[in-house]
Amino acid sequence: MTLTIGIIGAGRIGKIHVDNLRGIQQVRVKSVSDVVIEHLESWAVEKHIEVLTTNYYDILKDPEIDTVFICSPTNTHANIIKEAALAGKHIFCEKPVSFTIEETEEALEVVKKAGVKLQVGFNRRFDSNFRKIRHLVQDGQIGNPHILRITSRDPQPPGVDYIRSSGGLFMDMTIHDFDMARYIMDSEVVEVYASGAVLVDLAIGEAGDIDTAVITLKFANGALGVIENSRRAAYGYDQRLEIFGDKGAAHADNNRANTVEVSTAEHVTKEKPLYFFLERYTQAYIDEVKEFAAAILGNQPVICSGFDGIQAERIAKAASQSLETGVPVKLEQVGRSTATY
Amino acid sequence: MTLTIGIIGAGRIGKIHVDNLRGIQQVRVKSVSDVVIEHLESWAVEKHIEVLTTNYYDILKDPEIDTVFICSPTNTHANIIKEAALAGKHIFCEKPVSFTIEETEEALEVVKKAGVKLQVGFNRRFDSNFRKIRHLVQDGQIGNPHILRITSRDPQPPGVDYIRSSGGLFMDMTIHDFDMARYIMDSEVVEVYASGAVLVDLAIGEAGDIDTAVITLKFANGALGVIENSRRAAYGYDQRLEIFGDKGAAHADNNRANTVEVSTAEHVTKEKPLYFFLERYTQAYIDEVKEFAAAILGNQPVICSGFDGIQAERIAKAASQSLETGVPVKLEQVGRSTATY
Amino acid sequence: MTLTIGIIGAGRIGKIHVDNLRGIQQVRVKSVSDVVIEHLESWAVEKHIEVLTTNYYDILKDPEIDTVFICSPTNTHANIIKEAALAGKHIFCEKPVSFTIEETEEALEVVKKAGVKLQVGFNRRFDSNFRKIRHLVQDGQIGNPHILRITSRDPQPPGVDYIRSSGGLFMDMTIHDFDMARYIMDSEVVEVYASGAVLVDLAIGEAGDIDTAVITLKFANGALGVIENSRRAAYGYDQRLEIFGDKGAAHADNNRANTVEVSTAEHVTKEKPLYFFLERYTQAYIDEVKEFAAAILGNQPVICSGFDGIQAERIAKAASQSLETGVPVKLEQVGRSTATY
Amino acid sequence: MTLTIGIIGAGRIGKIHVDNLRGIQQVRVKSVSDVVIEHLESWAVEKHIEVLTTNYYDILKDPEIDTVFICSPTNTHANIIKEAALAGKHIFCEKPVSFTIEETEEALEVVKKAGVKLQVGFNRRFDSNFRKIRHLVQDGQIGNPHILRITSRDPQPPGVDYIRSSGGLFMDMTIHDFDMARYIMDSEVVEVYASGAVLVDLAIGEAGDIDTAVITLKFANGALGVIENSRRAAYGYDQRLEIFGDKGAAHADNNRANTVEVSTAEHVTKEKPLYFFLERYTQAYIDEVKEFAAAILGNQPVICSGFDGIQAERIAKAASQSLETGVPVKLEQVGRSTATY
Repeated sequence: MTLTIGIIGAGRIGKIHVDNLRGIQQVRVKSVSDVVIEHLESWAVEKHIEVLTTNYYDILKDPEIDTVFICSPTNTHANIIKEAALAGKHIFCEKPVSFTIEETEEALEVVKKAGVKLQVGFNRRFDSNFRKIRHLVQDGQIGNPHILRITSRDPQPPGVDYIRSSGGLFMDMTIHDFDMARYIMDSEVVEVYASGAVLVDLAIGEAGDIDTAVITLKFANGALGVIENSRRAAYGYDQRLEIFGDKGAAHADNNRANTVEVSTAEHVTKEKPLYFFLERYTQAYIDEVKEFAAAILGNQPVICSGFDGIQAERIAKAASQSLETGVPVKLEQVGRSTATY
Repeated sequence: MTLTIGIIGAGRIGKIHVDNLRGIQQVRVKSVSDVVIEHLESWAVEKHIEVLTTNYYDILKDPEIDTVFICSPTNTHANIIKEAALAGKHIFCEKPVSFTIEETEEALEVVKKAGVKLQVGFNRRFDSNFRKIRHLVQDGQIGNPHILRITSRDPQPPGVDYIRSSGGLFMDMTIHDFDMARYIMDSEVVEVYASGAVLVDLAIGEAGDIDTAVITLKFANGALGVIENSRRAAYGYDQRLEIFGDKGAAHADNNRANTVEVSTAEHVTKEKPLYFFLERYTQAYIDEVKEFAAAILGNQPVICSGFDGIQAERIAKAASQSLETGVPVKLEQVGRSTATY
Repeated sequence: MTLTIGIIGAGRIGKIHVDNLRGIQQVRVKSVSDVVIEHLESWAVEKHIEVLTTNYYDILKDPEIDTVFICSPTNTHANIIKEAALAGKHIFCEKPVSFTIEETEEALEVVKKAGVKLQVGFNRRFDSNFRKIRHLVQDGQIGNPHILRITSRDPQPPGVDYIRSSGGLFMDMTIHDFDMARYIMDSEVVEVYASGAVLVDLAIGEAGDIDTAVITLKFANGALGVIENSRRAAYGYDQRLEIFGDKGAAHADNNRANTVEVSTAEHVTKEKPLYFFLERYTQAYIDEVKEFAAAILGNQPVICSGFDGIQAERIAKAASQSLETGVPVKLEQVGRSTATY
Repeated sequence: MTLTIGIIGAGRIGKIHVDNLRGIQQVRVKSVSDVVIEHLESWAVEKHIEVLTTNYYDILKDPEIDTVFICSPTNTHANIIKEAALAGKHIFCEKPVSFTIEETEEALEVVKKAGVKLQVGFNRRFDSNFRKIRHLVQDGQIGNPHILRITSRDPQPPGVDYIRSSGGLFMDMTIHDFDMARYIMDSEVVEVYASGAVLVDLAIGEAGDIDTAVITLKFANGALGVIENSRRAAYGYDQRLEIFGDKGAAHADNNRANTVEVSTAEHVTKEKPLYFFLERYTQAYIDEVKEFAAAILGNQPVICSGFDGIQAERIAKAASQSLETGVPVKLEQVGRSTATY
């Protein structure tokens, strides 16, 4: 049995998925669509893409294709999800599913009715450090969790134009951390308090966003959590996590390009963290599509469902409201839904 | 010139100060008072204490004594401070100064008028890890601070009786972290949001306190902070700190009894953190009295003033109010005072 | 331009090279030969191998093929190298080139006359840790090297049958470390003293070999070196290196599957080293064939030449003589050659 | 019961012992002798030394004194040991006992006949890192030891004048490592091969000594060992050790002044090792005299006996012979004795 795949949107992340899918047995990447395709032609030949089109309906209508990857801009996701689901395709959709809870809920209901599989692209769930911690928690080696801490800092902020259309720090960047919080804790977030500041670049503040945040979470299991964000860490991509429970704690440090430590008269140095997500999560990107393919081929649940997607969005929304109002916000006040998609 | 010292209160911490003071040149520990002294007699002989009394006025009235250490229960501190100041003695007072801002403010005003020196026993300021970070921040090596994180967990909760009279987690335990936050950041806390939980021991909750907390701070310089507390870390005393700024970050890890790493077929292990404050802060306790003595002998400012004491109490008070009300509390709403003592 | 490749010997390492070569643009793996091929047929189809043969002359005679990989047993290497060189093929040969210096020297002379490129499979030169150290040394950041230490321990000894035909510990296992010593130090070994023991398994001793060794090296630049070997480290594959010079030292630690550290009441643990060479050197195996292909396509020198192969063998031979005689052996006494191949 | 102590030789190490002895209950440092004492007078008053003399016989003849510390130059040790033993005093003697095996053997025989206790000042046995490793080995947690590695490098060479009268690198510096090897391995060294070089300072070579060494050891239990020495590590005092056995390995890293790690755009740095032996072995110097006092008061064996002293000297002697002859030297060829002192 072979999975035949169409890719909708061939930007940076779409191309990464093509490369990673090509390394999987039982997978055939047949078609790619994008709004402009001239610059993609030699790339498509080299990657043995059979169909390159500006019209993604060419993918949705193709009966050979059973699975689509939605890698187009966020504001197109919800609509294409619905169309793909109605066309009976399994769906891998980049995060976030949409910018509004309502749109996401609508899209997921269509997916649910269609009975197709949908995986949301929270790639960090597949990182070997965080997976190890998830397993330790599930195995009870940390005991009952008491405090979760996530440190998540980018090496450089995106351009202000990107920020303006990003949905804001919480929806664009912290949404990964909100998903990670649920993944590690295996319990829902029930309340969020967000404090934020503009400390990296005043232009980000002028664009109506923040670049620095400390967010407190309360979980249904009674535990507490905290997320620290910055749009710019001078030393590179900072992706750490610690879970503390009644039997102990587990901490995931950053990855580095090598293990070398150098001692001189001036200081003792080691390598900085890997620069950004493409370096840090190289293997996670490979594993997320490999396991997505395996889930479809084996008719198993996906690791990261539509419900996971919507819950992360609800927490992001609650964080935004908290930042605006200056007080904690309960998750039950955000979105209408606790149904599993 | 010699400093002649009287110790008021010879419990565990009073005895530690006696030992540490005896190691300092130019210091003579002349007198010790406590409410019960029978069990102290052979100890006092061995330590060459000249006067052992149940009446601390014997110390305050002694014209030879120029400096007192107040190591009695917290509810006696404010009164003794006032009496000692009026008697013209320099004062080292254990933390917290008192349980109410008002009492502390009154006591510090008397100290101010009397023109004597007062140091509050925030011993962690003298720890070599945290001092190193303070120096890095002051030297500008981290740049402008953006986020401060303090992880502070005890190995075991005190008995519930102690907890009942402790003033609560924030006043008893977190007060050290509140002081550390100001010390590292070198900027005042302007707002506090405290989330707390009873996860370690239900009896602590029944006593009206919490045992787990995540506290968000906002500083006058615009930076954010977070403190994580637990009354019980299975692996020992957890005392870490990280400051993140626009030029980089500095992180202080725990201290361990040795550097040995053991690799076997089962795992790779290293030593746990030093068990509790007596082990971790041994040198800090020595250095705080050494530098206090040096400040008096050299007529220099103390490292940790009465103002530092009261500010930590105000933050603790704000945290308690935040926990009670569920919303952030501004520091200006707590206590009447921003005067420097 | 495309490199067309034939693989001679499709055991474990031959198959790894096929996978890694297939990931390189401008490379076509056309043919594979092995003495038995029935079990390889479906594998060859899946990998798009065009010719599967029991006769490696089918590869040497194929005018389309410009490059061969020699992955057959060591005792066949020298002969096939000569035949391939006479057939005008570029050659990648697994280590060691042969079991005797004389055979290796003969083969390399044929290669030299034929003017083809030859790379020896010392994969560890391509490991990111060791490369980093090589660069530090070359950049002068360590200053003049004084002492090199290589720790190299396998997780499990091979079977005694393998050991009997392995050429002995020094030729089979330490040969990688001898090559690494020259690579890092960038200076020739001039004297070797080897001490050895049978501590892991008496059967290894009965087979005439040792399983534990400490080897002292003297380099032409005056520096000293030491290699520590064991056939069995309970905790996994131990591959560390330290270079010490007059400006400082650089140390490469082991790689681990994740960065997680777990603290419990019992201990603080982290992941063991990656289990064995397939896990530890995954990327190095990829990079060695990628850079070999690039060297041929770009007509550049290879990273690991025939001369490097023979020098490692000479050091292994000297170590064996030292172990036998109990005294240090000068390298000039081993083999006839210092010519560069 | 009180130990009354006389100190013979009040140079740097003599003074350190005075300070450390004064911190021990049941110990009275009564007398100090040195060849010149004018500059010691105020120091002696401050330390409550009762007798300050240029004649060490004033100490040996004093019936109140039961224990002497010999901290005079090495060439006086053997003679004073004999005199002190005949006077019935217990003896703490700095390392090495003497520069010749014969002198040391003679002195120890007198000690043995006199029935007094003698401890040799191998302070590193009392270091918490190395003790931990010793305990791990004794507890069998490493299994049967296979390979021991000691890395021992000073931050700066002593002056050439010192080197000329030092007895050479092996007797002056490596002697600590030879003792450590026996202490950790709990088995005698049976053969030594030493390779050395002059890489730090040509003047050291002109003085007839070396400054860099790699020494291979064979132990009676079949295990192998290696010691790496340098007179100058740019980054400070380097004191590490690793024991590898059939159940695993234990490694002791250097100590540092704090645990702070700093990450900037340039690099990630941590503190260098503590600068030299006074900083690194502060606590070990305290513990060696504390345990010596306890051994006498409790009539227990000392941790580091005269036999330990002579064995270290024999290994140093064997290393020197090996360096001179270029071949391994068996320990049985050095000195006449295997008797326990």
